Amino acid sequence: MAETPQLTIATIADTAGVSISTVSKVLNGRPDVAQETRARVEEIIATRGYQRRGRRQAETRLIDLVFHELGSPWSVEIMRGVEDVASSERVGVVLSEAGGNHRPHQEWIDDVLQRRPLGVLLVLSELTAIQRRQLETRSIPIVAIDTLGEPPAGLPTVGSQNWNGGLAATRHLVELGHRNIAVISGDKAMLCSRARVDGYRTALAEVGVTPEPDLIRYGNFFFEAGYDHGRELLSRPERPTAIFAGSDMQALGVLRAARELGLSVPRDLSVVGYDDLPVIEWTDPPLTTVRQPLREMAAMATEMVLSMAKGAAPTNTRIDLATELVVRKSTAPPSEAW
Amino acid sequence: MAETPQLTIATIADTAGVSISTVSKVLNGRPDVAQETRARVEEIIATRGYQRRGRRQAETRLIDLVFHELGSPWSVEIMRGVEDVASSERVGVVLSEAGGNHRPHQEWIDDVLQRRPLGVLLVLSELTAIQRRQLETRSIPIVAIDTLGEPPAGLPTVGSQNWNGGLAATRHLVELGHRNIAVISGDKAMLCSRARVDGYRTALAEVGVTPEPDLIRYGNFFFEAGYDHGRELLSRPERPTAIFAGSDMQALGVLRAARELGLSVPRDLSVVGYDDLPVIEWTDPPLTTVRQPLREMAAMATEMVLSMAKGAAPTNTRIDLATELVVRKSTAPPSEAW
Repeated sequence: MAETPQLTIATIADTAGVSISTVSKVLNGRPDVAQETRARVEEIIATRGYQRRGRRQAETRLIDLVFHELGSPWSVEIMRGVEDVASSERVGVVLSEAGGNHRPHQEWIDDVLQRRPLGVLLVLSELTAIQRRQLETRSIPIVAIDTLGEPPAGLPTVGSQNWNGGLAATRHLVELGHRNIAVISGDKAMLCSRARVDGYRTALAEVGVTPEPDLIRYGNFFFEAGYDHGRELLSRPERPTAIFAGSDMQALGVLRAARELGLSVPRDLSVVGYDDLPVIEWTDPPLTTVRQPLREMAAMATEMVLSMAKGAAPTNTRIDLATELVVRKSTAPPSEAW
Repeated sequence: MAETPQLTIATIADTAGVSISTVSKVLNGRPDVAQETRARVEEIIATRGYQRRGRRQAETRLIDLVFHELGSPWSVEIMRGVEDVASSERVGVVLSEAGGNHRPHQEWIDDVLQRRPLGVLLVLSELTAIQRRQLETRSIPIVAIDTLGEPPAGLPTVGSQNWNGGLAATRHLVELGHRNIAVISGDKAMLCSRARVDGYRTALAEVGVTPEPDLIRYGNFFFEAGYDHGRELLSRPERPTAIFAGSDMQALGVLRAARELGLSVPRDLSVVGYDDLPVIEWTDPPLTTVRQPLREMAAMATEMVLSMAKGAAPTNTRIDLATELVVRKSTAPPSEAW
């Protein structure tokens, strides 16, 4: 971009026909500005390329960590990774749950503009283009940890190798002798869900198997999705001998479904989970799963956002850390082979 | 207390023989003050009764939530309760893990003094008397959620009825016909651990049973403690027919120990947990447990600290919410009775 003279607050005020104090209020996310005025000022800020530089003297050493929703042991792993880095840098971590009805998005962004954190970490959450622009114009960098869909251009993300995870899980089942393998993934709208299913397809294609469409299920990542799809899949006439679940929580649901149908794991059914949450090691049987390095992903995203806050450009805008198959006791050769 | 003329920053500076700017730095937790100078100023602030009043104009709408350690699904429930209230009040929640080696206490308190939150919530964490005084002199209120030991006088706490929980769990087992009942509790230094064991003793005393000392175990609240004590208890010549565990995580450890010894739950052994974490409903068998209203406890503590921030005195400095027995599938009459 060519150097242009920096837009000042006074110019913005002139252009919008408001006072300097009103512009300042909008920049700081203060609520006491009429909606229409705010929109006009934001528009000028965004289109004329205003960029706040430097930080106020008493620097706010905070980052905002935004979850789509709390409530899974999964989120604890993310928090620990963020906290590992933030605490050693003496940065406070402000926790938010976005998307819940109790926190309207505009209020959240106003609060963030007011507290001016060093940066924002989004976990499976999305901002509107306008919200992203609001943060960018205030020099508040954003990094996403995992993403729902294709992340917007220029948004740095840290994720994990979902396709490889799906491949490794399915290859493991294939090597044990399974061919009739079902998969339950997350929401089809999420890229990570589709990447894992593609890994599954590729592993089966390696041994010349094309799975029936009905063996491929999409749901959410919670217990109930695993349970419901598990019941259906295990009630099919040609019952699958193995199920690859999209999360450890889903895998617990599959285990419950199997138990209710009188099937023993791994004798009658092999189950592979995804995530490797600490609690899983203690289930019955201990779960074979694909480890996502959640804590490391969160730590890396935190390092990125803090270095961007210091003015560094992100070294790489899309990073996927390696996933790893962890074999425990929920997988075995299919019973025909016993 | 009698009204005394308010100590000013200038008087503190005079008394300590330092500049006003140095006193201001100490009040705001800024690091660039010599240790010896800081100690002298803190001493004058504390002994002469300095009390900062009002808040700086751009109010920091934050509260600090301090965990002894993250890493249990238990902590997610607490966070959700805090977030329920904080988000509706548009207050940001800053998460910290205290006690870890990576966050020296003095740095943490300096950071809190700098960011001047509306209040501090301590979860199973303790501050030194000096740290409490530092927060009090800056008018930053503190509320504890659960406490390790007897809380210091005047520190408002929100907990749950541990004695009643122990009583209800053990009465349930007694009513099923059990008499040889073991208990695994948390750290003996924690009041909640001892209260639960006392409830257990009382329920047994109601039917004229005095438990052998070896049946009463103390550990920590994690899986391994349940597993280790479970192995030992279940290897006794007079094997207990029921175990009341101090946490759901411990109960999972007992279930694992039972499985390894070839015992079926609930046929050969009844198990009661404590907490009622969401994940527990999905274990095999679903766990009978004592529900602690963690989310409600956290919400109430957050309301208390926010109303104290507005100047209200706490209505009650020690609140214990009710616990409740939730009967699922891990308890049954002892096998002699089958």
